[in-house]
Amino acid sequence: MKIKIALLGLGNIGTGVYKVLAHCGQKLEETQGLRIEMARVLVRDTAKARAVDIPAGLLTDRIEDILIDDSIGLVVECMGGIEPARTWLLAALRAGKSVVTANKMVIATCWEELDAAARASGAGLYYEASVAGGIPVIGTFNRSLQANTISEVMGIVNGTTNAILTDMSEVGLSFERALQHAQKKGYAEPDPTLDISGKDAAFKLSILASLAFGQRVRVEDVFVEGIERITQEDVAYGKTFGLTLKLLAIGRVESGRLQVRVHPAFLPSSHPLSSVRGPFNAIYLTGDALGQAMLYGRGAGDLPTASAIVSDIVMAAQHAGRHEHPAFLAGDVSDALPLEQNWQAAYYIHLRASDTPGALSQISGVLGKHGISLATVTQTARGSCTAPIIVITHPARELDIRRARQELACLDVVHDIVNIIRVEGGDGV
Amino acid sequence: MKIKIALLGLGNIGTGVYKVLAHCGQKLEETQGLRIEMARVLVRDTAKARAVDIPAGLLTDRIEDILIDDSIGLVVECMGGIEPARTWLLAALRAGKSVVTANKMVIATCWEELDAAARASGAGLYYEASVAGGIPVIGTFNRSLQANTISEVMGIVNGTTNAILTDMSEVGLSFERALQHAQKKGYAEPDPTLDISGKDAAFKLSILASLAFGQRVRVEDVFVEGIERITQEDVAYGKTFGLTLKLLAIGRVESGRLQVRVHPAFLPSSHPLSSVRGPFNAIYLTGDALGQAMLYGRGAGDLPTASAIVSDIVMAAQHAGRHEHPAFLAGDVSDALPLEQNWQAAYYIHLRASDTPGALSQISGVLGKHGISLATVTQTARGSCTAPIIVITHPARELDIRRARQELACLDVVHDIVNIIRVEGGDGV
Repeated sequence: MKIKIALLGLGNIGTGVYKVLAHCGQKLEETQGLRIEMARVLVRDTAKARAVDIPAGLLTDRIEDILIDDSIGLVVECMGGIEPARTWLLAALRAGKSVVTANKMVIATCWEELDAAARASGAGLYYEASVAGGIPVIGTFNRSLQANTISEVMGIVNGTTNAILTDMSEVGLSFERALQHAQKKGYAEPDPTLDISGKDAAFKLSILASLAFGQRVRVEDVFVEGIERITQEDVAYGKTFGLTLKLLAIGRVESGRLQVRVHPAFLPSSHPLSSVRGPFNAIYLTGDALGQAMLYGRGAGDLPTASAIVSDIVMAAQHAGRHEHPAFLAGDVSDALPLEQNWQAAYYIHLRASDTPGALSQISGVLGKHGISLATVTQTARGSCTAPIIVITHPARELDIRRARQELACLDVVHDIVNIIRVEGGDGV
Repeated sequence: MKIKIALLGLGNIGTGVYKVLAHCGQKLEETQGLRIEMARVLVRDTAKARAVDIPAGLLTDRIEDILIDDSIGLVVECMGGIEPARTWLLAALRAGKSVVTANKMVIATCWEELDAAARASGAGLYYEASVAGGIPVIGTFNRSLQANTISEVMGIVNGTTNAILTDMSEVGLSFERALQHAQKKGYAEPDPTLDISGKDAAFKLSILASLAFGQRVRVEDVFVEGIERITQEDVAYGKTFGLTLKLLAIGRVESGRLQVRVHPAFLPSSHPLSSVRGPFNAIYLTGDALGQAMLYGRGAGDLPTASAIVSDIVMAAQHAGRHEHPAFLAGDVSDALPLEQNWQAAYYIHLRASDTPGALSQISGVLGKHGISLATVTQTARGSCTAPIIVITHPARELDIRRARQELACLDVVHDIVNIIRVEGGDGV
């Protein structure tokens, strides 16, 4: 079997794909009986110096060269962003060319029209690399968990924030220093907003939750909170309680309703996600037959991402003429779960309060009034006029916490509400 | 699409498959467009009371009823053991029926003839459930890592021993008490020999390593050491060094040679496999493109195993007429790596020695003579005439350790060599 492909984009990921294909081509012929021929590489500037040695005839700056070439059966998109990726992928799919993409944004936001174009022409649409880089999480949902109804997906899907939080926890760096360190090591972009705001994770969760729960979950359905307000102090306090701070992307079914969100949260150190350090990613899931499972690995980087892309190319080639498409994209799923935002979690509440005997009772009074019961309370630094108080609550509703927060802020004895952070995974893992 | 299947065996796993199929049948029709019809269930005694309600007409005690029924396209084997499984599976494959099996023994030992029968008739042979229960590790190797050359696979693939070691480490139980506890909880068989000897893990490693390295690795190629001689004392000493004891199944390529083995080993507590507790399983691997990755989940149990079996049934149905077969089984792989047994690891050496000033220098002298250098030495309990000495070495060769051990045993100052245990994963994970 032979397939001619075109590569769109020759940045970090595109170059990785080119390298990995050159490296593993012979192996793929031997083990898969598949010969992948690189026919065209689309770049913005064909004259620019490249990190890889590419025959000059392959380079082009005209998408038409690829779209009108009927011998090209598959297009690998490594450009990122929505346009022109969307327009070009639609054109490729309409021309019957299968698409393999690493682009979380274009899948998360334009999935329906891309899928419809693919179904109409009989082409395939593959996007394993769009979530968690090299970790085969999409393939696992599509091809290994069919017997399961998934009740929860909990992922660390952004390596930048995980590297920052790991440095804050293990090296004791401040948020700012940890961010600088991540930029220096190449884990964070010069403008890290998309990562630290949680938005990057929300794009990935949109794709992941759609596949996990078999219904379309849109980016705008995802409640998002980033790690901008996390302090070194909070990370350190959490550690004293045996808790590790992570930015989590969560989809969870509770009482027949689906909740999807990205937020920083503490996890018990014994939770499998707690040991996911540095730029690594992991997806922890619960299925009714499988029970708990986790997939762990590198969520970014040129070669890990290329590993996922090549597996998609092989899959696309082997399924030529009979590509599969998620059932939930074909039309409205009649039994889709209603979405809800009424999160339940334990909470870590970090306050500065007057170091007076009555302060604690006023604070617990406000929490109690909103139905929030306390698991532990720690008050330190007696002697100065302000004492840090750390409260860990039993599971409480987000709305109750918000109301209690407003009331706590009005108490004279409360000088400052430093941070309120969710505590997840406390179900005795 | 519709497929009629037969189930061989209605023990724990077979009953799980029956239950899961009954439960997820409608979902599979909706999401996969696949209707799975249970046509026959082979049992030893059709009159026996069952945990599930099965129409009487489905039960049979004659394999012929299944083999001669041309409407049955697939056979799910949940009997275990080599015979009669081997004979019946060969007959089914020769009759053109695909086979899905949870049987590690029959795959590990009869793989070639089963695969040859499948190829000859065009049937499929699927065995996701044979290794690590519900964890989709076979699918991952076959369908997600094609671009990678794997340099190492390191697995916790036996839940019984992992539950025992977890109890020894976390609860402080002795080996005997931990084993009793595992038996009480149903994690260990009444006769636990196959598990604690490491042989069960060796069967699984044979399959896993064959797929990972693309060449046939036989059970008899695997060096096996069990956990019978592990003491609570060793587990506790290891902990003081930040080490966690696990029974590991390892395949590793070193200098162009493949080594495969099952043995107990300490891992740094920061290693992802260290946090795999109780009956859970995990497979940690290193690929040249992907880097490090880990798959984690339930390695046994009726429903997790059924989850894997159902995914195989779906795969088999969707690939009817074009099943895939591992290239390395088709004939001799010309570039198969030579196998070697010359393991390199750091070592934990636990001795009881005379509490005299010269003892330590004699001991380190023997180790040094065999090229074994010391990373740390701890001597405690000064005052009594015998002192426990714990040595952690730098990476050393197994053969050198064996020679040094013989010589240490002859030293007058050494009263007892309590245990020598490998330390893996020290490459700065």
